[in-house]
Amino acid sequence: MIEHHRQLFPALAHKTYFNYGGQGPLSTPALEAIQQGFAEIQRRGPFSQAAAEWIDPVTRQLRRRLAERLKVPVQCLSLTENVTIGSDLVLWGLDWQPGDQLLLGDCEHPGVVATARELSRRFGLELITLPVGRNPQLLETIAAALTPRTRLLVLSPVLWNTGEVLPMTDIVEICHQTPLRPVRVLADAAQVLGMLPQDLTASGVDFYAFTGHKWCGGPEGVGGLYVSPAAADDLRPTLAGWRGVIKDESGDPVAFVSDGRRLEISTSAYPLYAGLSTALRVADEWGDERQRYRRLQSLAEQLWFGLRQLDEVECLLSEPPASGLVSFRLRNGRHGELVRWLEQRGLQVRQLLSPNCVRACTHYLTLESEVRDLTAAIAEFSGLKEG
Amino acid sequence: MIEHHRQLFPALAHKTYFNYGGQGPLSTPALEAIQQGFAEIQRRGPFSQAAAEWIDPVTRQLRRRLAERLKVPVQCLSLTENVTIGSDLVLWGLDWQPGDQLLLGDCEHPGVVATARELSRRFGLELITLPVGRNPQLLETIAAALTPRTRLLVLSPVLWNTGEVLPMTDIVEICHQTPLRPVRVLADAAQVLGMLPQDLTASGVDFYAFTGHKWCGGPEGVGGLYVSPAAADDLRPTLAGWRGVIKDESGDPVAFVSDGRRLEISTSAYPLYAGLSTALRVADEWGDERQRYRRLQSLAEQLWFGLRQLDEVECLLSEPPASGLVSFRLRNGRHGELVRWLEQRGLQVRQLLSPNCVRACTHYLTLESEVRDLTAAIAEFSGLKEG
Repeated sequence: MIEHHRQLFPALAHKTYFNYGGQGPLSTPALEAIQQGFAEIQRRGPFSQAAAEWIDPVTRQLRRRLAERLKVPVQCLSLTENVTIGSDLVLWGLDWQPGDQLLLGDCEHPGVVATARELSRRFGLELITLPVGRNPQLLETIAAALTPRTRLLVLSPVLWNTGEVLPMTDIVEICHQTPLRPVRVLADAAQVLGMLPQDLTASGVDFYAFTGHKWCGGPEGVGGLYVSPAAADDLRPTLAGWRGVIKDESGDPVAFVSDGRRLEISTSAYPLYAGLSTALRVADEWGDERQRYRRLQSLAEQLWFGLRQLDEVECLLSEPPASGLVSFRLRNGRHGELVRWLEQRGLQVRQLLSPNCVRACTHYLTLESEVRDLTAAIAEFSGLKEG
Repeated sequence: MIEHHRQLFPALAHKTYFNYGGQGPLSTPALEAIQQGFAEIQRRGPFSQAAAEWIDPVTRQLRRRLAERLKVPVQCLSLTENVTIGSDLVLWGLDWQPGDQLLLGDCEHPGVVATARELSRRFGLELITLPVGRNPQLLETIAAALTPRTRLLVLSPVLWNTGEVLPMTDIVEICHQTPLRPVRVLADAAQVLGMLPQDLTASGVDFYAFTGHKWCGGPEGVGGLYVSPAAADDLRPTLAGWRGVIKDESGDPVAFVSDGRRLEISTSAYPLYAGLSTALRVADEWGDERQRYRRLQSLAEQLWFGLRQLDEVECLLSEPPASGLVSFRLRNGRHGELVRWLEQRGLQVRQLLSPNCVRACTHYLTLESEVRDLTAAIAEFSGLKEG
């Protein structure tokens, strides 16, 4: 059945794909939805009431499908171009005071780190990096770091390098129990949506930035941000455009809209919304979120066990990953060379720099035979036989 | 010849389009370039070296074509999602001090106005609105407003409501002659690129935000920002992502890149870059920038003269517009009704709120017969015969 479903994804033909955490494959229905969207807007007239009557329901449908995935009220969602902008709008949108503390996990993406540093420089914040990756005392580390000056903790619920899944509900609980005011939590969820089933309302997370182009198989260029009802008043729009403002009868922007659109800015490529919406539907046609997660986690486990058999390979985690991210090192350190060697043979994985390693992602679309092929190829590169 | 060229644009079939200032039509080659871009990335593997070998030259080609249009060094360009983000990144990127003055023309777009107000609130700036629209003493007004606390003037080189073309070179000269330090000028050029030939290097403008989806006929969702070499040091990145940072060998973002990519953030829909690049080429195939401008300005003039003949219509400008934007009022004020009535008849124009009016845009793609048809339809709606 998975072989039949995979035929919807042209990228999966003639190659062995393990870069879902970089970018997922687009299905033919999603590609067609994008193409038909562009054509439909042209047919109706690009800037017309008739075009709006196509764009508005497509946008509403995408918001609804995303809200269902995340288990949040639809009005708490903002659509963005990518996950980084979502995170950055939270970082810039809080009412920072000099001396405030901003906590950042040590496995955050360079984009978020660079923004946090610039923000700290401009507002005189104290930026503190917490050891998060492979830290068995994580909750204690976080609890010990919280002070009355702490405003925000930025963490990825699934670490993009090690593939660890953090206990976000416990982390949020610790942060919200601080006496003066809750410490807000921003989740950089680049590696979560479409991979790990989520209930954001239950987790209590304040801010959650995500993208559609990785595990969901949507087009590059569409992501979003969830802001919890409790945290909404703490966040001001930074960039503003016509999508987020309310105008009076003379066109003057007198207020921001009250729902998530307040953080949306200006004209986006709306046909891509149809692409992501279709991608979410196509995945559901194969199986529900839990079925997809069980399958990809089982495949990650198989890969992890296979790699553990190779003397020249060291997996980053000492237990099978709870996500679809399997990261490993070669004892000889020839990671860039391995990635290029594999790509020449049709096997696509990626190199990471911190920690220096190679990452292979298993998706529900992955085949068991692909896991075996990758393991065998890595063994071959290392000049080894499989154990 | 124009009839033949127009057949490349599916949106122009079966309707009479005057909303180029809202969004331009996509040509079939541009639509195909987008579609082929998505397909090509899938074919190569969405996150692979092979995909980068398609994305990189497409991106470079777009930058080169935009730089040629604007007559600027290519390394001064940043690609953005839209014109509003470009403007907002300038507004947020300056090193504001409490009490600094920010000057804004009174015909600026609500998105820019809302951002400027939020910025003023957060940094304690003085926000001053200058009368710019239909002001015969514009240069004197600007000169009189400059003080030692003035940091930035935000203006649209072509006013989106009245269609006036401002003398930007003179304005920039006045702003740069201030004794202490130059007052920087941010141009919101939403209505310029693809309509009015530009030489930004000659004009001396500091910051210039533009979009590809209006007069250039590119897809919605791609724009850019030019930062002059002289002004570059005044501007810090605000939002940061992997596209703008330099990482050391452990992946730590140690600096921002030195060229315009420093303001670019994260993953965008790269196939749209191919669409805009193709759109720029298609326009050049009909005629050069000056030929296109002469044609659209002549058509705007014809429309303006035609509307002047109608007793119930009042054009906003007392002279023929120097741009392709023709705005007018009905003496009975039934603007919304007119726009809907025209759209039902296949004629697409838009209503504006400040000043309350209707705007029709002539493009080099516009036909003289379309100008006559629009004039006749407006006359019919007004219950008038043409004069």
